[in-house]
Amino acid sequence: MSNTQKTYDRLVTELKEIGLLGSVGGVLGWDEQVLLPDKGRELRAGQSGLIARLHHERFTSPLIGQMLAELESSGLLADPHGDVAVNVRQTRRSYDRATTLPAELVERMSRTEVHCQQAWVEARKKSDYGHFKPWLEKMLALKREEAQCYLSAGGDQSDRPTTLYDALLEGFEPGERAENLRRVFAELRAELVPLIEEIAGRGKSDSAEVLHRRFARDQQEQFAREAAAKIGFDFEAGRLDVSAHPFCSGIGPGDVRLTTRYREDSFTDAFFGVLHEAGHGLYHQGLPAEHFGTPCGSPVSLGIHESQSRMWENLVGRGRAFWNYFWPKAQERFGAALAGVSMDQWMGAIHRVEPSLIRVEADEATYNLHIILRFELEQALLHGDLSVDDLPGEWNRRMKQDLGVDVPDDARGCLQDIHWSGGMIGYFPTYTLGNLYAAQFFEQAKMDLSDLEGHFSRGDFVPLREWLREKIHSQGKRYSARELAQKITGQDLSAAPLMRHLREVAQIGGAV
Amino acid sequence: MSNTQKTYDRLVTELKEIGLLGSVGGVLGWDEQVLLPDKGRELRAGQSGLIARLHHERFTSPLIGQMLAELESSGLLADPHGDVAVNVRQTRRSYDRATTLPAELVERMSRTEVHCQQAWVEARKKSDYGHFKPWLEKMLALKREEAQCYLSAGGDQSDRPTTLYDALLEGFEPGERAENLRRVFAELRAELVPLIEEIAGRGKSDSAEVLHRRFARDQQEQFAREAAAKIGFDFEAGRLDVSAHPFCSGIGPGDVRLTTRYREDSFTDAFFGVLHEAGHGLYHQGLPAEHFGTPCGSPVSLGIHESQSRMWENLVGRGRAFWNYFWPKAQERFGAALAGVSMDQWMGAIHRVEPSLIRVEADEATYNLHIILRFELEQALLHGDLSVDDLPGEWNRRMKQDLGVDVPDDARGCLQDIHWSGGMIGYFPTYTLGNLYAAQFFEQAKMDLSDLEGHFSRGDFVPLREWLREKIHSQGKRYSARELAQKITGQDLSAAPLMRHLREVAQIGGAV
Repeated sequence: MSNTQKTYDRLVTELKEIGLLGSVGGVLGWDEQVLLPDKGRELRAGQSGLIARLHHERFTSPLIGQMLAELESSGLLADPHGDVAVNVRQTRRSYDRATTLPAELVERMSRTEVHCQQAWVEARKKSDYGHFKPWLEKMLALKREEAQCYLSAGGDQSDRPTTLYDALLEGFEPGERAENLRRVFAELRAELVPLIEEIAGRGKSDSAEVLHRRFARDQQEQFAREAAAKIGFDFEAGRLDVSAHPFCSGIGPGDVRLTTRYREDSFTDAFFGVLHEAGHGLYHQGLPAEHFGTPCGSPVSLGIHESQSRMWENLVGRGRAFWNYFWPKAQERFGAALAGVSMDQWMGAIHRVEPSLIRVEADEATYNLHIILRFELEQALLHGDLSVDDLPGEWNRRMKQDLGVDVPDDARGCLQDIHWSGGMIGYFPTYTLGNLYAAQFFEQAKMDLSDLEGHFSRGDFVPLREWLREKIHSQGKRYSARELAQKITGQDLSAAPLMRHLREVAQIGGAV
Repeated sequence: MSNTQKTYDRLVTELKEIGLLGSVGGVLGWDEQVLLPDKGRELRAGQSGLIARLHHERFTSPLIGQMLAELESSGLLADPHGDVAVNVRQTRRSYDRATTLPAELVERMSRTEVHCQQAWVEARKKSDYGHFKPWLEKMLALKREEAQCYLSAGGDQSDRPTTLYDALLEGFEPGERAENLRRVFAELRAELVPLIEEIAGRGKSDSAEVLHRRFARDQQEQFAREAAAKIGFDFEAGRLDVSAHPFCSGIGPGDVRLTTRYREDSFTDAFFGVLHEAGHGLYHQGLPAEHFGTPCGSPVSLGIHESQSRMWENLVGRGRAFWNYFWPKAQERFGAALAGVSMDQWMGAIHRVEPSLIRVEADEATYNLHIILRFELEQALLHGDLSVDDLPGEWNRRMKQDLGVDVPDDARGCLQDIHWSGGMIGYFPTYTLGNLYAAQFFEQAKMDLSDLEGHFSRGDFVPLREWLREKIHSQGKRYSARELAQKITGQDLSAAPLMRHLREVAQIGGAV
């Protein structure tokens, strides 16, 4: 065995152990959201902080840098999509980002995040933007400082970000650029705003009333489990539990955990929430276990991750073919609530489009306008084109312009999301990116797989899951998100597939 | 601040971080028993193994040895029961034990444990002692080797163990010696065997039938929670969940977790099981949080730990005063099962004494004979006075002699417990030690606290919990178990208090 081969093996062994340490942090984080007793919070903060520190120390050790340098100058990287090149290239990317920030800045950021988040919780509670404003200002200054570090760092990658915003976006969606997103989001917005105006013009309907009858908690849980299992989530390698904020934690091979919350007066929250998280879960369960801890065994990006959850939640889970199979089962299970309801009524209800104030409650069409608004405002804030003083006014103006909605207070306006208070700038666009990729992949799957919807109608979701596993899940970080989409669909990112889907949604939602 | 004071502070900081790492292992272990999906077992083994290794590396680092040596030759240890002396003395004890074993032996032991436990599972399933025997032989040889390492290690403690068995016992009950246990167990046995014979002579009764009516699972859980909360277990700093084998995990300050299992045809398993685990839990919740990770914040020994669980389970939880309060509540909750049952009948049922085959199902009197038998056999096995060939015969002979019971097969005989297959030799006696200490402490509490049973009858368990907290929980490892018992009760360990209690048990159990 050559010396470079030995170095590569040592790198992989080290990365796997670091991955294992990260997965321990995953268990602690999951437990904190789902089970932790109140008085155990201080202990948990200490435990998680310790594991995060050990993880960071191991990953940023000069030893990793030396191994990478040795491998980069070797002949092992000939095939750019081979395991070795992928693992070396992607580890280099993360290593450089992790080692670029001075410890002092990391420390200051983490302190500020805690305070800023506390201020946000308080401000939202009282709908008092003034309480949050100075902390948002501080946070933005820190994020500029952080982004500047990435921009001024050494290294020879030709595709490095060149703007502050892109430097942060890179942390969530490697290889993506704001310029590209602006182009696609503009296409989307140009078609979406008139479509939504048209729907709003039809006037209010109470077609969604059926979703708010009484659905017993246990029945909801069993139905959601049945659906998650049916689309291929493996409950021997995962769980479903309850938490205040639903999430999916891919702890590692064989242990992927979904959470949801149940409201007896709502069918949609838990059911489509579980399909959404199970979509993320299927991605985790489809990652190649033998590459666990290395880039070849890790998800590509947040956008691709979200494409998986959105596909199962919206493109599959709200589709007619899906309900051909599940509607009789729903009627059997929720007899009292659904008696006398036709499947057409049901389809109308779950496709209802109606502009509203709160992003996380928005339907699948208007949702994207919430995102585009945040994407534009956060760029302007970061680059100094919008002052924190002007944020609420600008937010409210845009909500009126894009969605025709009057924002009654900042709690239901610019204070509604946690992201900015936690320093997550550059995260929002990945939600809509997920919708775009989902629509693009789904159109391709329907072309590649014959009679996909016939299969769905018979309760057979295996062909789609296997297609996703082969094309996306099993690839790890072998390709960037954009390369992957190009490779699978032969197309660049575009708004067209999503708009085709949303026009159908608008039609079904308006048909009743 | 003096240099030695600085060294002490550094030692404490290091021990607390090591403690934090250990508590992460606690979370992983708890999750493994309670929630882990089947296919996540391999990942979990990797995670737990990694954390255990990091923990061991940190604790056995020469740095700790240097700090201990510096502190031992300083003036800081003047008060033998002050924080500094306790932390240095007890850390030295654990450090020497942890660093004495060669890595190669630790490796061999851990490999053998895995195989030996697999062989035991298999052997017990088929009741085939021959399958387990060669592994037990190997395990005993390794335990002798391990014990020999402790005996031949350097160090200047005058109270170090001098026999193989004591060297292992020291790992579970520091400072205790087999000679002392033999003396007390002999006293106990001498009085217990005739008492049990006398009870057996009364003939069979079906007084326990009432415990095996139908008790709905949810009602059992709520009742057990109510009782655990009433005796003072803080559910804001802990949880109660379900696992195949009940246990209590004191993860750390603010996070203490109990488990149990429910059988609808048995009242006792879950209810007294939860009281037992809550007794352990109260000990954890009473440890001084500011000393977490150091000996001053850690339990004294397994025997003292077990005294806490046994006291709440048996001395309090089966007592008439306890049921003066809980009996009307039980009747209300389990109306159908308990209709027409008198409290005297109930007291008779929960105090029933009857020799049986299986330790974990034994009543509180015969239980100790199961332990004494194991204690004597494991000494003989380790010291070579009993061959593994002769174990089943000797086991069965003793069961007949002490309990009058015929052992039908080895699965219900010498293969019933997991301990020996996991290398836990020297563990068993701590169970009966717990019973002995519990009785001794409880007699003292009744003397120290006025009208304790009046309080119990009114549902007030605070005085006892506070007494235990002050006398035992808050002390950490400040005193050895024997010093602690002497300090609290003014008495050496003796069988008399437990026998006084068991005679009462026999009387109540025989009264119906």
